[in-house]
Amino acid sequence: MYIILKNSATSQEIETLKSYIINNGHGVIETTDYNVKKIGIMGKNGGVTKESLKKFSIVDEVVKIGKPFKFVSSEFKSEPSIIEVKGRKIGGDNMVIMAGPCSIENREMILETAKVIKENGCEYLRGGAYKPRTSPYDFQGLGEEGLKYMREAANKYDLVMVTEVMDTREIEIVGQYTDIFQVGARNMQNFSLLKELGKTDKPILLKRGMSATLRDFLMAAEYIVAFGNKNVILCERGIRTFEIATRNTVDINGIALLKEKCHLPIIIDASHGTGKRSLVEPVTIGCILAGADGAMIEVHANPKCALSDGDQTLNYKDFGKTCEKIKKTLAFRKELKEIN
Amino acid sequence: MYIILKNSATSQEIETLKSYIINNGHGVIETTDYNVKKIGIMGKNGGVTKESLKKFSIVDEVVKIGKPFKFVSSEFKSEPSIIEVKGRKIGGDNMVIMAGPCSIENREMILETAKVIKENGCEYLRGGAYKPRTSPYDFQGLGEEGLKYMREAANKYDLVMVTEVMDTREIEIVGQYTDIFQVGARNMQNFSLLKELGKTDKPILLKRGMSATLRDFLMAAEYIVAFGNKNVILCERGIRTFEIATRNTVDINGIALLKEKCHLPIIIDASHGTGKRSLVEPVTIGCILAGADGAMIEVHANPKCALSDGDQTLNYKDFGKTCEKIKKTLAFRKELKEIN
Amino acid sequence: MYIILKNSATSQEIETLKSYIINNGHGVIETTDYNVKKIGIMGKNGGVTKESLKKFSIVDEVVKIGKPFKFVSSEFKSEPSIIEVKGRKIGGDNMVIMAGPCSIENREMILETAKVIKENGCEYLRGGAYKPRTSPYDFQGLGEEGLKYMREAANKYDLVMVTEVMDTREIEIVGQYTDIFQVGARNMQNFSLLKELGKTDKPILLKRGMSATLRDFLMAAEYIVAFGNKNVILCERGIRTFEIATRNTVDINGIALLKEKCHLPIIIDASHGTGKRSLVEPVTIGCILAGADGAMIEVHANPKCALSDGDQTLNYKDFGKTCEKIKKTLAFRKELKEIN
Amino acid sequence: MYIILKNSATSQEIETLKSYIINNGHGVIETTDYNVKKIGIMGKNGGVTKESLKKFSIVDEVVKIGKPFKFVSSEFKSEPSIIEVKGRKIGGDNMVIMAGPCSIENREMILETAKVIKENGCEYLRGGAYKPRTSPYDFQGLGEEGLKYMREAANKYDLVMVTEVMDTREIEIVGQYTDIFQVGARNMQNFSLLKELGKTDKPILLKRGMSATLRDFLMAAEYIVAFGNKNVILCERGIRTFEIATRNTVDINGIALLKEKCHLPIIIDASHGTGKRSLVEPVTIGCILAGADGAMIEVHANPKCALSDGDQTLNYKDFGKTCEKIKKTLAFRKELKEIN
Repeated sequence: MYIILKNSATSQEIETLKSYIINNGHGVIETTDYNVKKIGIMGKNGGVTKESLKKFSIVDEVVKIGKPFKFVSSEFKSEPSIIEVKGRKIGGDNMVIMAGPCSIENREMILETAKVIKENGCEYLRGGAYKPRTSPYDFQGLGEEGLKYMREAANKYDLVMVTEVMDTREIEIVGQYTDIFQVGARNMQNFSLLKELGKTDKPILLKRGMSATLRDFLMAAEYIVAFGNKNVILCERGIRTFEIATRNTVDINGIALLKEKCHLPIIIDASHGTGKRSLVEPVTIGCILAGADGAMIEVHANPKCALSDGDQTLNYKDFGKTCEKIKKTLAFRKELKEIN
Repeated sequence: MYIILKNSATSQEIETLKSYIINNGHGVIETTDYNVKKIGIMGKNGGVTKESLKKFSIVDEVVKIGKPFKFVSSEFKSEPSIIEVKGRKIGGDNMVIMAGPCSIENREMILETAKVIKENGCEYLRGGAYKPRTSPYDFQGLGEEGLKYMREAANKYDLVMVTEVMDTREIEIVGQYTDIFQVGARNMQNFSLLKELGKTDKPILLKRGMSATLRDFLMAAEYIVAFGNKNVILCERGIRTFEIATRNTVDINGIALLKEKCHLPIIIDASHGTGKRSLVEPVTIGCILAGADGAMIEVHANPKCALSDGDQTLNYKDFGKTCEKIKKTLAFRKELKEIN
Repeated sequence: MYIILKNSATSQEIETLKSYIINNGHGVIETTDYNVKKIGIMGKNGGVTKESLKKFSIVDEVVKIGKPFKFVSSEFKSEPSIIEVKGRKIGGDNMVIMAGPCSIENREMILETAKVIKENGCEYLRGGAYKPRTSPYDFQGLGEEGLKYMREAANKYDLVMVTEVMDTREIEIVGQYTDIFQVGARNMQNFSLLKELGKTDKPILLKRGMSATLRDFLMAAEYIVAFGNKNVILCERGIRTFEIATRNTVDINGIALLKEKCHLPIIIDASHGTGKRSLVEPVTIGCILAGADGAMIEVHANPKCALSDGDQTLNYKDFGKTCEKIKKTLAFRKELKEIN
Repeated sequence: MYIILKNSATSQEIETLKSYIINNGHGVIETTDYNVKKIGIMGKNGGVTKESLKKFSIVDEVVKIGKPFKFVSSEFKSEPSIIEVKGRKIGGDNMVIMAGPCSIENREMILETAKVIKENGCEYLRGGAYKPRTSPYDFQGLGEEGLKYMREAANKYDLVMVTEVMDTREIEIVGQYTDIFQVGARNMQNFSLLKELGKTDKPILLKRGMSATLRDFLMAAEYIVAFGNKNVILCERGIRTFEIATRNTVDINGIALLKEKCHLPIIIDASHGTGKRSLVEPVTIGCILAGADGAMIEVHANPKCALSDGDQTLNYKDFGKTCEKIKKTLAFRKELKEIN
């Protein structure tokens, strides 16, 4: 359920209304949807009714949301959300490329990679310090040491830092370094983690689980929003199917459908989505033309020597060409929109 | 196994070599790969050896093909194939849009649709006269009557006709009308049908089976080629996954990988691939940017009244806009290629 | 829609009623469901109405069928069907083991295998003369020669012969030899084939397609029934999933659900279902306890030398033990039924 | 890598050897495999070599393990493991039925259910106090209050308590009440959680992730073992496939294969595995005959009123019959083993 406010509503009137809702046992979420102010009312067990709300003079309409995912849906907010972080904007037609190595291996490599990223006009540095590895015997990441190196590199080249948090206990330490928290595919339904991240104020990059339906995906995003953090960025990284020629199957349908059903930005990670270096570029630009708001790309000085995921990682030269094509594709997409 | 011929080889020398191979119990397939002439040698049980071939002076090299799909592979022919039909070209950067209703419902509708297709600069008329329907109680198509109407419409507007053949017994009758035979997803591994179509000389549009791996798909194409027909056009139409928000999951990774692994043209059918009208355009242009050589699109004067698949069918207006965007995307893709 | 007849109805009255229905453009299908006679009315476009039927004095009730699969459903007939072939019964608690090699390789091998099958108390000889092979370059079966050998072996050891038919054009020739037609997984939605088999009077063993939902599967069975042949035996042979440790994933849920939703017998083919010799026995007996009416098993004198599917094929000794366990499992299942 | 010890090895000699291994930077895991003592050597980065080990006189052989899952594999230990908890044994042919409601709703219900469970000869009480719910707006469980009620009920009826832990922070509190920790499907690759549970000394019931391959599943179990806890019980609860008639697809092949590839006990949860009440019994007994070591079953006084998962929950009467059939199936399976 959400309220459409009259344009005339004053800040004070809005605060009074919000207090009323909160005092009746609900959460609230405010948004602006193409200049219309809305207040979402969260929770099933509170005491607020449609009738009681209509008595407030600033209430224009009270609308029930049909979808199970409520406040991430385009029913609640049809205007695409733009998430701001360190002066950059994610969403809209802004160029968003989150790049870096799968794992932070040492200080030099991350500094070097950051330099390359910056030189290619990218603004986001991604990399793993805590790594979810299928085998307990594989490299598990550098931990806090890795976070320090990443922060140093991000600061030196003025990049936004994105890194994964795997456990509620790590939120604090990771939060001391990162600008954006990443939730990995294997943790997409780690509801404890989602709830705690909902209480933070940094943007969350939420990766789709390998067998998560789009509904599951949006419900996971809803968890974060329901616990207080509206800044969720979705990331399609391929789903598991019977096809074995590629590591995963990128769901381009899903990208197009998510753009229709929700207002959150969506990033395509074709490195994990395909598992094959040569496919990263065509799949990334294809998905961007289909609606994705940006790309996540693994890049490494020498992919063959990467401690993890080398097969899907670009070298600097290919990365540069891919960035240029992404940029052109974003411009072309804007041009296409004028046809409607 | 295939032979790379010396440039100096004369037609007569080539014929002599081919006869030698055929007389030893193999099939042959000729191609030109970026100006290099090659002869493929088909079949496991013939008597030809690498050594015996090298004795022919026109033989430059004899190469073993590693892949199980042999003569459709880019190992055999790295230059993308262009398939000619009625003066049009499928493959390369030619604009290929195959459009029409799911089922031919009557003469008027197919004539009207053909007109719209032509007006939008498309050259191919698709439609079903024999329909593979999940239920025996659903509309099964008009049969030969439908073929007649389609042929009339294709002739009137100078379009290339594409229609499905479901059974070896129907090849003759369908072949009297159509320009391109379509093999449906449910028949992708109907090997009897593939073999018989391999003996015809019309292009075959082969749809990927719902649970066919890319390897299965290429092996099915190989069947047609192995029985004598090189003119195979692949069609990605989505695979079956756990996702239920869309009818199928379009495999954009598969499109990019097929462009790498084989030389055949690939068409994207986002109507079946998504099952949702609003997704047809973004998914089609996304897949084209990722490498697809054309699109198949369902269009109907009044999608809500279509006898089959109405939910995924565009009306004339949306179809027009989609065609324009496809055209621009093809031009843009050409431009991007210059970056490499 | 179907009619429940009064017990008092005479043959002549029933014939009169049937003629009425047929003359109004419908097909009819008769059955007896726990001693109650029923007539199913097929087709959407005929002229019969509930009201017109109720005027016949022998009509007790006219019932609409909710399911899309109508005459295979347990709504129409709740009593499990037993299909008779050459004096044997498929369904109920009869022991049904269809065994033999994947491909008929020569006369001796099929005679030898038939002997082993008979010695182990089995009544059905299966084997492929026409083989659907993924590669055009693989062994395609012996064709009619194979049929002859199989018939000879079946006759010699008094076994029921089961073999695959892949194409409408082969129905006649295969029908001259076989007792049961098998439709392979890749042809489950070859509707032309299903229709033609519906016009024959031999039982049809219908294998589930690799990505066919249970609904698709029942609809394919419905095709055969709708065209006149009630004797359909379903065969679960595993579906395609992301799991790669086994060739397919046997859907034990599906077996249990099919027993609930339809009246047709269901056979488990754990050879194809698992693709691994060591799993054939446990999966077969597990599925039988869950409700399957019998088993299909690949057996070969020397699995390692089999021309196809050797990895999933049992040798004679293991086959013997598996048969004994199946027999005991059927007896145990009967015993368990008394607990209800 | 693991060591096979000579029978003559004394405790002191074994301790000396273990200290040597540990001091060289490896973990150790001891087991007895059909009366043969073995020491597993964990970790890639330690300094122990095959040669250095062979110098110890009690070392009979040093064996490399080929599989990526090492100490859960039957390469390391071919004898099926039996896990003891509160005097009961899980594994072998012991009857193991873990039953209870999906969610603990209140004190009375769990006491009543525990009574019914005990009366049916079951020894394990399962139930959720912390619930992983897809929607943030659904009932999230009673938390510690639920744990208290469960403990009380388990104590009163002398049952072993099994309940889910969702987060590393909850291990301590849940551990104060439960006898067995359950890891849910959504957390199967929550590696932080697995590591921490590896440091506890209570048995872990590990549910297979919805899209986890068998290899992923065993690797997740390996995590727990690698961090020190050998007492892992696997639980098959169905995987996600394209089939929509059932909630999940129970992988009976997987059960049979896991019994072959690893030594851990495996429980079948057909409640979640099928999502349909009527399928729980046939699928459970089928999977037990195929090799599963026990069953997990949801039971509720009034399934229709259950706060979660009512559709898949048995009432008391059906539960009683199912228990009886499971008991008989276990006895029958034992009998079948004698045929080999």
